[in-house]
Amino acid sequence: MKKPVILIIGAGAGIGGNVARKFADGGYHACMARRSDGAGLEELVSTIRSGGGSADGFLVNAIEDEVIESLVDKIENEIGPIEVAVYNLGAQIGNRALSDTTYKAFETGWRLATFGLFRLASAICPYMEKRGKGTVIVTSATAAVRGNSGQHSHAAAMGGRRMLCQTLNAELATKGIHIAHVLIDGAVDAPDTLGKILGPDRFQKLREEKGLERDGLILPDEIAETYFHLAKQHRSAWTHELDIRAFSDLAWWNHQTIAI
Amino acid sequence: MKKPVILIIGAGAGIGGNVARKFADGGYHACMARRSDGAGLEELVSTIRSGGGSADGFLVNAIEDEVIESLVDKIENEIGPIEVAVYNLGAQIGNRALSDTTYKAFETGWRLATFGLFRLASAICPYMEKRGKGTVIVTSATAAVRGNSGQHSHAAAMGGRRMLCQTLNAELATKGIHIAHVLIDGAVDAPDTLGKILGPDRFQKLREEKGLERDGLILPDEIAETYFHLAKQHRSAWTHELDIRAFSDLAWWNHQTIAI
Amino acid sequence: MKKPVILIIGAGAGIGGNVARKFADGGYHACMARRSDGAGLEELVSTIRSGGGSADGFLVNAIEDEVIESLVDKIENEIGPIEVAVYNLGAQIGNRALSDTTYKAFETGWRLATFGLFRLASAICPYMEKRGKGTVIVTSATAAVRGNSGQHSHAAAMGGRRMLCQTLNAELATKGIHIAHVLIDGAVDAPDTLGKILGPDRFQKLREEKGLERDGLILPDEIAETYFHLAKQHRSAWTHELDIRAFSDLAWWNHQTIAI
Amino acid sequence: MKKPVILIIGAGAGIGGNVARKFADGGYHACMARRSDGAGLEELVSTIRSGGGSADGFLVNAIEDEVIESLVDKIENEIGPIEVAVYNLGAQIGNRALSDTTYKAFETGWRLATFGLFRLASAICPYMEKRGKGTVIVTSATAAVRGNSGQHSHAAAMGGRRMLCQTLNAELATKGIHIAHVLIDGAVDAPDTLGKILGPDRFQKLREEKGLERDGLILPDEIAETYFHLAKQHRSAWTHELDIRAFSDLAWWNHQTIAI
Repeated sequence: MKKPVILIIGAGAGIGGNVARKFADGGYHACMARRSDGAGLEELVSTIRSGGGSADGFLVNAIEDEVIESLVDKIENEIGPIEVAVYNLGAQIGNRALSDTTYKAFETGWRLATFGLFRLASAICPYMEKRGKGTVIVTSATAAVRGNSGQHSHAAAMGGRRMLCQTLNAELATKGIHIAHVLIDGAVDAPDTLGKILGPDRFQKLREEKGLERDGLILPDEIAETYFHLAKQHRSAWTHELDIRAFSDLAWWNHQTIAI
Repeated sequence: MKKPVILIIGAGAGIGGNVARKFADGGYHACMARRSDGAGLEELVSTIRSGGGSADGFLVNAIEDEVIESLVDKIENEIGPIEVAVYNLGAQIGNRALSDTTYKAFETGWRLATFGLFRLASAICPYMEKRGKGTVIVTSATAAVRGNSGQHSHAAAMGGRRMLCQTLNAELATKGIHIAHVLIDGAVDAPDTLGKILGPDRFQKLREEKGLERDGLILPDEIAETYFHLAKQHRSAWTHELDIRAFSDLAWWNHQTIAI
Repeated sequence: MKKPVILIIGAGAGIGGNVARKFADGGYHACMARRSDGAGLEELVSTIRSGGGSADGFLVNAIEDEVIESLVDKIENEIGPIEVAVYNLGAQIGNRALSDTTYKAFETGWRLATFGLFRLASAICPYMEKRGKGTVIVTSATAAVRGNSGQHSHAAAMGGRRMLCQTLNAELATKGIHIAHVLIDGAVDAPDTLGKILGPDRFQKLREEKGLERDGLILPDEIAETYFHLAKQHRSAWTHELDIRAFSDLAWWNHQTIAI
Repeated sequence: MKKPVILIIGAGAGIGGNVARKFADGGYHACMARRSDGAGLEELVSTIRSGGGSADGFLVNAIEDEVIESLVDKIENEIGPIEVAVYNLGAQIGNRALSDTTYKAFETGWRLATFGLFRLASAICPYMEKRGKGTVIVTSATAAVRGNSGQHSHAAAMGGRRMLCQTLNAELATKGIHIAHVLIDGAVDAPDTLGKILGPDRFQKLREEKGLERDGLILPDEIAETYFHLAKQHRSAWTHELDIRAFSDLAWWNHQTIAI
């Protein structure tokens, strides 16, 4: 019997790669797409295969025209029905003042965080709708629920992402398509993203401060457990929005204040 | 080796009983407390035991003075450390206009939905804090996030419940205590609560309309799956707030409108 | 012609007293109720009268049985129709850990912040409904929208307050009653409340740090301008929820973070 | 003495034109920009001038390159300092299923609702920052806080708009720039927008159903009162987010349900 397929857009060494591994362990064929680092992608594929799972890697630039659309069609036609799609492209560019945020940076944020998801949904939902089932899990960020200084591009893009998820849910849930918006509310222990933003030294320092490299940062393999649970939820009891953060972190709505 | 203990305040035939069964299947000793229907409680205990699990039932009125507090102490001292506590008391009294909502009804809502949780947290968190770990899962309702006509008592009580959960989380997460607020956003297929509010005929009619008695209403055994997942989340990746609804329902923020 | 009446529950030297003065200047008869400091109350009344306005003071403990109810009846029968009611009782007790928050403190928070408003609404809305119009303005706090460490009593009480306001709005707006929930998101330059919580020295220090005693704290006479605007909004364009904070403060959802 | 200037992007016969008139009456010079209907624009200018106010009209397509930026520079250099800017471009295209929402429609929504505001802020805030003061009022929609079926383009665009406003506020409030996000939660009695979406017959029918053409729809001249109040708020007591709806409407979070 053919395995169900999971497609992951944004499969690096953090959330994406760990989700791929978890689902591969759970019996899915993992299709992983990422923009760069072909060697890293190959390694992910090999690791999964050598563990007895099955996977394919696609080195593509998702925000280019037709890339997401072709990839979906190709997998549906050549590999199998995509039961779960994970949209895992981030758009964080660090804090930039309004005056330092170019039109291009603002637009790129939207292309990555909002429009790309719309394109994925437009491509994949017709297939899922025909089958009467499917799951789309969207990795999202704190910026989806509150803007903060320096986050012009990121917050606008992620705020759009969340409202798009609610729209998709409102329209497609009754057709059997489960849309889940996962608010990752904190730093993920991910060398490909956080590691690159901070640089190796600051990243390592942060890891050490947050508890001997374990569990003060959000561990991506643990996030993968929750993604897997979401995909397994019965349609009578779907979660549409949830947050994930480390026990050691404050929620986005909390800060140290005097009581007033 | 001793089993970890789960305490469920509000263990009827809906969410509470199903959570007990799920955790018992997963290796927990289930302590179930409910106010009435001793026969129903006995049945839950028997079902779990006959399935190879272990459980105890407590027929108590949680909102009476000292009941929750004594129960926690008793279980901690005589049965074992409570690793998971589920606060599952509802406070829905149906829609009542402001003029039909007595002071007593308003206060009872608060005693059930807000104060009772505060009492449970006050009793159990010191134990959990000493152990550096523990999970408190709170069943909550749509009224926790928006007031609606006729919901004076319920919404005020549930709004207080949610803000209390956020406060507990802000204070106790760093001490290893996981607080999860679960927004049950729709009708649960539960004869003890919804069944009683609607009466047997309307309840049966609703079940039939919502899809042949399956999955148009939220199925409590499926909710139990998510509660179990929450209890198993690694502390680097805790969920504090999530919603649960049936695929066939609109989210609380959606209604049919013309686009304007 | 008789003046319209405004009733203010919680009329100290901060928001309450300033709202009284603003409405008195704007042609209302101001009925001010407060629990203590009869001399301060007399001074407020005199100031308004000497400015050509009209006002009465009531030294009452609002959370005692029947006090709010009798006051409303008395004013309606002996003074005139209450067109605007302002519920301005706070329930902040400073930050207290869960273990330091007594059941009594938790209940008092609810009596002040949630139940008192329910009692006011129960007493006054029937009058307003008969007249087909009226305004209830509720001073609220950041704790109404997010719990924070140490805020067990306050956040639960204020969360209940906000959900109650939404319920009242959902039920009574169509009957011409305007309910406005005003989230005061920061420290108010109010000697009777913040001054007492902090003590005179810390209060003065805060005032000086926040900009030469002007406008780094929220000025209560400026809040009064917005309350007056709310009372004047046409019923085709009512505001139900709004926030108020000083330009120099971060919103409750913002804190200094590294971008992640 | 020179009048302060208000710039309104999106000045039709609804909110924009009424805001212009209100501010002109209040002593501002009103600069009104709109894309089409030069005759309508001329009429707005004439009405204001014949009432003793001062105004200019600009017939421009704001989403074209450099249009907003040039307009801001031109007004600042040739007319006077812009004290208040109102971003009033909508992006509602009615309800369209996912399959009927083209990439172009999705992008246009973003260009109108999100990117246009970013461009306005980028152009105007440096001027305001230099002066240490300024107000930016953003007309927003229900779709900014919840996605609904058929609202893919609109909700994503408006969700981005709101998060951008929060970001601007977080960064610029301390520099004296007041950003206000006004959630218009219902149908505005505006022939240029709602009238065009519905067509003349449905629009007239809606007006009649909603109460003899008065106050069941949100009246734009009444919205203008609140915009004026926002511009006049003292910086110690700014409102960043507020909602506006007609007394006869349910809030976006309310719908008719049975109590569960």
